[in-house]
Amino acid sequence: MCHCGQMPSVTSLIRPLVRRLHAYVPGEQPKIPGLIKLNTNENPYSPAPPVLAAIRAAVDGRLRLYPNPTAQPLREKLAKHHGVTAAQVIVGNGSDELLALAVRAFAEPAGDTVSSKSRVQFPWPCYSLYPVLCATHGSAAHAVPLLPDFDLPTVTQLRHSRRWDFRAALTLVTTPNAPSGRCYSLDQLDGLCAAQRGVVILDEAYVDFASEHAMKLINRHAHVLISRTFSKAYSLCFQRVGYFVGNPELIGALDKLRDSYNVNGLGQVAAVATLNNLPYYRRNFARVKATREKVRRELSGLGWRVVPSATNFLLAEPAGPSAQKWLTALRTQKIIVRWFDAPEIRAYLRVTIGTEEEMEHFLKVVHRLQGKIKP
Amino acid sequence: MCHCGQMPSVTSLIRPLVRRLHAYVPGEQPKIPGLIKLNTNENPYSPAPPVLAAIRAAVDGRLRLYPNPTAQPLREKLAKHHGVTAAQVIVGNGSDELLALAVRAFAEPAGDTVSSKSRVQFPWPCYSLYPVLCATHGSAAHAVPLLPDFDLPTVTQLRHSRRWDFRAALTLVTTPNAPSGRCYSLDQLDGLCAAQRGVVILDEAYVDFASEHAMKLINRHAHVLISRTFSKAYSLCFQRVGYFVGNPELIGALDKLRDSYNVNGLGQVAAVATLNNLPYYRRNFARVKATREKVRRELSGLGWRVVPSATNFLLAEPAGPSAQKWLTALRTQKIIVRWFDAPEIRAYLRVTIGTEEEMEHFLKVVHRLQGKIKP
Repeated sequence: MCHCGQMPSVTSLIRPLVRRLHAYVPGEQPKIPGLIKLNTNENPYSPAPPVLAAIRAAVDGRLRLYPNPTAQPLREKLAKHHGVTAAQVIVGNGSDELLALAVRAFAEPAGDTVSSKSRVQFPWPCYSLYPVLCATHGSAAHAVPLLPDFDLPTVTQLRHSRRWDFRAALTLVTTPNAPSGRCYSLDQLDGLCAAQRGVVILDEAYVDFASEHAMKLINRHAHVLISRTFSKAYSLCFQRVGYFVGNPELIGALDKLRDSYNVNGLGQVAAVATLNNLPYYRRNFARVKATREKVRRELSGLGWRVVPSATNFLLAEPAGPSAQKWLTALRTQKIIVRWFDAPEIRAYLRVTIGTEEEMEHFLKVVHRLQGKIKP
Repeated sequence: MCHCGQMPSVTSLIRPLVRRLHAYVPGEQPKIPGLIKLNTNENPYSPAPPVLAAIRAAVDGRLRLYPNPTAQPLREKLAKHHGVTAAQVIVGNGSDELLALAVRAFAEPAGDTVSSKSRVQFPWPCYSLYPVLCATHGSAAHAVPLLPDFDLPTVTQLRHSRRWDFRAALTLVTTPNAPSGRCYSLDQLDGLCAAQRGVVILDEAYVDFASEHAMKLINRHAHVLISRTFSKAYSLCFQRVGYFVGNPELIGALDKLRDSYNVNGLGQVAAVATLNNLPYYRRNFARVKATREKVRRELSGLGWRVVPSATNFLLAEPAGPSAQKWLTALRTQKIIVRWFDAPEIRAYLRVTIGTEEEMEHFLKVVHRLQGKIKP
């Protein structure tokens, strides 16, 4: 820029769109000894021992080589698992990467005028990453409220509301919903997909903790993609592996945008091994669900209003003092839960389901604090 | 879309820009027993044994947790290593991810009219990913030829040529150059950076095999970023870890665009362990460089025209038959090298430097084939 010794500002070199961005704020990952971490919906159970063994066995000289650029063995295994072809599967560096690619593949940047072509729509509240992805791409985030009990409005309700865009370039539905935990039936989702003209992504990050999934909708609707991840249910957050399933042409569009070696090799090894050990994980799902229902009953008994959950977390409105006060009070007891500063959910805490022991301790602390937190 | 049983085409749901894209074609990763793979510039030597041990030791229950979202321990270590602050370092899922983010952070999509604001410029030939990244973002790829011997034109030459844009939003320089292997001096790069008004990224993916690097230019020029990777020199292609160093404001712009957990956890562990074992890698660099010079001498002796290299590969114009014929002939002997179908380098083969044994075998095969391939 100049050799005069003064550093001129570089702000003008950054695109105005990027200057205006606020980065997505992920849940905290504090390293405090003895902390009970119920804030980022991680699975409390370790990956299956044979999965750990498979990863360790792959840690050798091969690390010097590039991983399979298309995650071919993993995609083939996933295709078999879901009864589709490998061309219908794309693997990402976590499903976050694929969600970002979807916004870039299907929605135009908005520029000065917003139309359906640049509109990314989502029933709100939902995964809080979606509006961030819209902002980074410059497309128009269009949040349409869920019903007050977090249920999905019917197509008729959506038509009446006039806020919903049936031609939106992209519609993102977190199902089961986060942060509420609420599930939507196949019929509800089918009806919504049938009415929609643009691409619909059903983000099933938590679906393994539900009793139903919507994978079959990809056969009924060419414009529907299913998003899945190994992070939560399969205890692999650390290794960043997610995937989409759906129409090969839409999958192909995402494939053109991804980095050529987007999925790290040990992540691929871990995911393949996971699919060879599903009974272990199914037992974990059952444990998490049983613990979840126990916590739900106990909190309800204490006067908390708990949303029915089909996930590995509970959204609950505490009795007495505000959720924010509870957040702080629990933190002093070395328990971290999540609180979102958004109008629709400010009254709630989101509590990840930990191990039986962790949740017993959590309940004990709640019992102890109940009535003792100053409003 | 419809329930009538006919699947309508989904082509119209994909952005026209994305429909027009051709994906980047990475080098082959074939799994043929006994194959000598000299086509993707991977390091022939394994990561250091303590690095492998550190990764294995991290393969346990923690895989269920998210990795450090900002790669904090790794960034702090890199900052110390390069004498900068952690705010001057960003870690990516390979440097490929960061290069893609840079195009999106600093260059506008071109739309109908191309100006400097949407122009991404690079001396050509270079890393063949750059034009792909421009196409995916919709900015204008502006390739300006290197000199016939792959040297960088001087600023005066660039001014005279009138093709070079000193105000281009982003300039990408592969240094040492790929695919030629040629190095550029600090003075050459300094002169170019000083003349440039937009962001300049010096992509030093291969710099550990050279005798000089340009890291100090970030202190002279606020608009200059250095790109590095653990893939090649540090034998970690499999785990996808790259990084940029430079002005904290430019680094911050990239940070806003990246996925929040973009770098897998075991990759972070591996990179930190690598920085604790640098003497091992420095010995490897010396071995690769010694082998490279030996291969260069022998090929030159056979009448091949070999570009002087500061990398772990050689670009060489074979004697006699065309490079493409040599490519095929070598393949029949289970040796894979790289050939690019681009006018400036069609006459050349790019040969990655393997182990001493691999390269002895390569030279033996070249000796044997020389004069026997039908032109």
